[in-house]
Amino acid sequence: MSEVQVLKDVATRLRINSVKATEAAGSGHPTSCASLAEIMSVLFLKEMRYKPESPRNPSSDRFVLSKGHAAPILYAAWAQVGLFPESELLNLRKIDSDLEGHPTPRLPFVDVATGSLGQGVSIAAGMAYVGKYIDKASYRVYCVVGDGESTEGSIWEALSFSSFYKLDNLVIIFDVNRLGQSQPTQLQHHLEAYRLRTEAFGCHSIVVDGHNIEELLKVFMCSYGQNKPVALICKTYKGQDFPGIADQENWHGKPLGVKAKEVLDYLNAQLSNTSVGSYSLPSKPLDDCSELKLVGTIKLPSAPQYKIGDMVATRLAYGTALSRIGQTCDRVIGLDGDTKNSTFSIKLRDVKPDQFVECFIAEQNLVGVAIGCATRGRTIPFVSTFAAFLTRSFDQIRMGAISQTNCNFAGSHVGVSIGEDGPSQMALEDMAMFRSVIGSTVFYPSDAVSTERAVELAANTVGICYIRTGRPNQPVIYSPEECFCIGKGKVVRTAGSAGDHLTVVGGGITLTEALKAADVLATENINIRVIDPFTIKPIDAELLAKAVKETCSKVLTVEDHAPEGGIGDAVSAALSQCGIKHTVQRLAIREVPRSGKPEELLAKYGIDASAIVRAVKSLLGKQ
Amino acid sequence: MSEVQVLKDVATRLRINSVKATEAAGSGHPTSCASLAEIMSVLFLKEMRYKPESPRNPSSDRFVLSKGHAAPILYAAWAQVGLFPESELLNLRKIDSDLEGHPTPRLPFVDVATGSLGQGVSIAAGMAYVGKYIDKASYRVYCVVGDGESTEGSIWEALSFSSFYKLDNLVIIFDVNRLGQSQPTQLQHHLEAYRLRTEAFGCHSIVVDGHNIEELLKVFMCSYGQNKPVALICKTYKGQDFPGIADQENWHGKPLGVKAKEVLDYLNAQLSNTSVGSYSLPSKPLDDCSELKLVGTIKLPSAPQYKIGDMVATRLAYGTALSRIGQTCDRVIGLDGDTKNSTFSIKLRDVKPDQFVECFIAEQNLVGVAIGCATRGRTIPFVSTFAAFLTRSFDQIRMGAISQTNCNFAGSHVGVSIGEDGPSQMALEDMAMFRSVIGSTVFYPSDAVSTERAVELAANTVGICYIRTGRPNQPVIYSPEECFCIGKGKVVRTAGSAGDHLTVVGGGITLTEALKAADVLATENINIRVIDPFTIKPIDAELLAKAVKETCSKVLTVEDHAPEGGIGDAVSAALSQCGIKHTVQRLAIREVPRSGKPEELLAKYGIDASAIVRAVKSLLGKQ
Repeated sequence: MSEVQVLKDVATRLRINSVKATEAAGSGHPTSCASLAEIMSVLFLKEMRYKPESPRNPSSDRFVLSKGHAAPILYAAWAQVGLFPESELLNLRKIDSDLEGHPTPRLPFVDVATGSLGQGVSIAAGMAYVGKYIDKASYRVYCVVGDGESTEGSIWEALSFSSFYKLDNLVIIFDVNRLGQSQPTQLQHHLEAYRLRTEAFGCHSIVVDGHNIEELLKVFMCSYGQNKPVALICKTYKGQDFPGIADQENWHGKPLGVKAKEVLDYLNAQLSNTSVGSYSLPSKPLDDCSELKLVGTIKLPSAPQYKIGDMVATRLAYGTALSRIGQTCDRVIGLDGDTKNSTFSIKLRDVKPDQFVECFIAEQNLVGVAIGCATRGRTIPFVSTFAAFLTRSFDQIRMGAISQTNCNFAGSHVGVSIGEDGPSQMALEDMAMFRSVIGSTVFYPSDAVSTERAVELAANTVGICYIRTGRPNQPVIYSPEECFCIGKGKVVRTAGSAGDHLTVVGGGITLTEALKAADVLATENINIRVIDPFTIKPIDAELLAKAVKETCSKVLTVEDHAPEGGIGDAVSAALSQCGIKHTVQRLAIREVPRSGKPEELLAKYGIDASAIVRAVKSLLGKQ
Repeated sequence: MSEVQVLKDVATRLRINSVKATEAAGSGHPTSCASLAEIMSVLFLKEMRYKPESPRNPSSDRFVLSKGHAAPILYAAWAQVGLFPESELLNLRKIDSDLEGHPTPRLPFVDVATGSLGQGVSIAAGMAYVGKYIDKASYRVYCVVGDGESTEGSIWEALSFSSFYKLDNLVIIFDVNRLGQSQPTQLQHHLEAYRLRTEAFGCHSIVVDGHNIEELLKVFMCSYGQNKPVALICKTYKGQDFPGIADQENWHGKPLGVKAKEVLDYLNAQLSNTSVGSYSLPSKPLDDCSELKLVGTIKLPSAPQYKIGDMVATRLAYGTALSRIGQTCDRVIGLDGDTKNSTFSIKLRDVKPDQFVECFIAEQNLVGVAIGCATRGRTIPFVSTFAAFLTRSFDQIRMGAISQTNCNFAGSHVGVSIGEDGPSQMALEDMAMFRSVIGSTVFYPSDAVSTERAVELAANTVGICYIRTGRPNQPVIYSPEECFCIGKGKVVRTAGSAGDHLTVVGGGITLTEALKAADVLATENINIRVIDPFTIKPIDAELLAKAVKETCSKVLTVEDHAPEGGIGDAVSAALSQCGIKHTVQRLAIREVPRSGKPEELLAKYGIDASAIVRAVKSLLGKQ
């Protein structure tokens, strides 16, 4: 049988299996699979170089299915090349199968979860960046994008990034099947519009009939070597080869039901060879990339270099720590969105330019690229920008958790303490956002020493880590030898055996303010215990419960953040769970702030030392 | 003096005032203003038709400064046309001035806050959509975009949207000044690349020297009538006319300091006329658009049409309510991101196609367009998509709060109860996100009747409203006449005088599960009080405190959401603040879920009726 006939047969088998699997599941997207069948056949049998028996091999080509709802055909492709028996495909979407509705890395051949659309290209770009510039290996990265999702701006951020960095090892395949979920796409079959758009964004763009095996083979052969990412614009039909269904509306996201038998009969009749085992296997990759084990191995080269009382912004300590761990491990990388001179990630670039990726002002792509860089454990990425702008990437971060990424995030310029730039630049929601991410760790260091340790801990911690840093200088309160652990807070002020009247919990600048308030209150014989939680998730429930018991059951939380989702919520949650009697009052930012000097704003919105003094007295009935 | 000379002089005055204001403030972005001076002069003195004395006049042309950090030149322009004295510009960034670091609608001439980059074009597109299709008025919308921010994908989402809807009343001006914050932009002065990109995205694109008044005048004259949005690609220099500073790196976001005097001397010497009052004023608009007062006037035409026990998904009730209020007010509009047949916003489109805007798969633009549609009170927008995908727009939503928007959001398909589609489609962070937004209201209705009332209340509530809806059918539990208020929960199950042993708080599907659990527990003589909070923000602290006092101080929260930021946090926060003794245990989704049947997933992740029964017994020591 000719190679073309083999690939045609495989495409038909992939369609058959997509139909069967979604029929068995009673849900899914068979028509979104059908448009892809020839593309998947050519990619998985002919074009990609990989080891089917070792799906996460570091030297293998990568594949990202950005249109994650076409999962059944991806699963069918891996069954086709022998990773598991075809019969398993009938367990699609069942609770005890890893063949989920959209791909997740529970499957060994999936690097990242997809299913929130438009995210795949950024991730693929991150993989390709690492392949070209860090691994310096021969693997390529293939990403299949739906036409519906190509209206997502993140895709254009990713293309602009990929052409800027000349990622010629990246192939983006647009499956232009004309139909979205609820109506035709914006551009329908205007293939030329896709070509012009991708070309204008710096791709080597080629329009091809996505159902023509010969054309696809030819196009792949001649698409490389342009020093640009490749964009294949494939004209396809949704539900191709499903009689009566192809190119029809109202067939998105549903199994074929009563039409299934007719379609399967039609497809089976197309097969020239009905035996599964007779098809050739893909080419092997060059073995030019070795396994790595990074998480758990990163250390600061020496203790932090500060003296107690030094005035240092935590954002600066972040940059310092990043550059320090970057010097001990050449796989620690920094990524920023044109704020590197404000977040101080520039300190890594200054000493290790090859470990820094400028991602420009495009935060969704910034996060997607970083998640891509972290796949297969190739790097330990630290993403930095203003914390406010990380909200731009919440969907990517949320998906990152499903992708089991070990990517780290540092958000600077939090809260009103940034001052004159005003509310658009003030993160007031970032703790709420990162706390809600499943499996995340949220660091909120309050001085330079603890910030450096937060960076070191984050680098070695599985899952998403977030480090919240501030703009203003703050006094160093810990000695360089102080030890820090995730989930362990510190009592930074107590009258000891003299007894404390009340507990105050702050973070960052508000911890500094709480310590100032403690000085003022002490002159009036009011002792407050001040707690630095260090991590807001997990929070040190034991330390808080002990403090509550020892300080008249009263706690004041103070945070440069909205009242919801931050320190106040975390402390209340921990204490409510304990069941001991307590009152938590919270000082937080309750209205949209405005521009002003940092100290004016801390006062105006009631989170400075004076406000803490007033609140403590009020709670103690001493006004 | 010739018109061109007047406009040149005004440009110089705008530069002078930008320098003076940022000098007085000691911070700000004078160089980012300087590149815009001729553009602003031509726009504000010649091109735009508006009433300087009535900045939010509904008939006037709109102006959006997407590059919000150039605020000083916007303020200088309004001083130039006489809205306030020039001397006020020296209060820039002061705490008692509304001339903030980035524009906010505290100023009467600012419709939306900008400063998180890349958001202006979507907002402007929303304004232009309303102008063309809803107001059917002659006003135009002008949006100035920085080249640094043009890497933000949201801009390309907005351009694709704008050309799809033929928004020929929209003019997007790219200020291509070559330099970003920390280094040159991706495309620097490759004007042709901008032209190709914007043209490929459907704009009528023109490259122009942004410092040449004559060219700008000519280009504006001939840019309309193409049935497309206009993109002016202006070649400019950052810090133009600042000797020694223009086109140099390391001058972003800082006042000129020691160089200020030299620059001001140079600029003053350029002026042909030093008197401020002698310049002409802008043209007046056609008065073809009248004032509206919408919020507070919207009513469901009749009580909800359900019987207790009917099985209705809250997402369906949302669509029904939206179509019902849309029929009573032609300014209630629905916007969706190609999920209208899942969120049921299609029900509005079916009856009122002119009140529905399909925004395709581009959620950042979806939200930006909606915020634009809400400006000047022209419409009451309801944005719907899967709640998980609203995380894509968190930055736009956060900025919407600063913009004082009255935009409403409905997120469907929350939590594991969606079933087989898997974790990428399951919102588990949406309550955390919306609770953290300052001034927001978060509805979590648990049946169809309360959902319809939530929609009605949201339409009439100032600030951002969020309505959380679910996929599965749930029994109607309220009679059509039941009254609902923001911040008022309902006791939906109690043994009354027989006494309740424990309080359970749920929302959506978990309220249904809690009621099932109550039936089971009642057979074992355990009475639980079940509370439907209706709004999670604000939460009914009084009702909760009363319940705690009456039910052994024990509360169980159950939510189809992450443990952080949702019902558990809201309930704990309210009770911790009260200071009464209580224990809150929470059932929530603690790990990344997987695909499966809804009921299997509710069981597996421990939020179904059986899990509630077990947790209640455990809390009561009755295991």
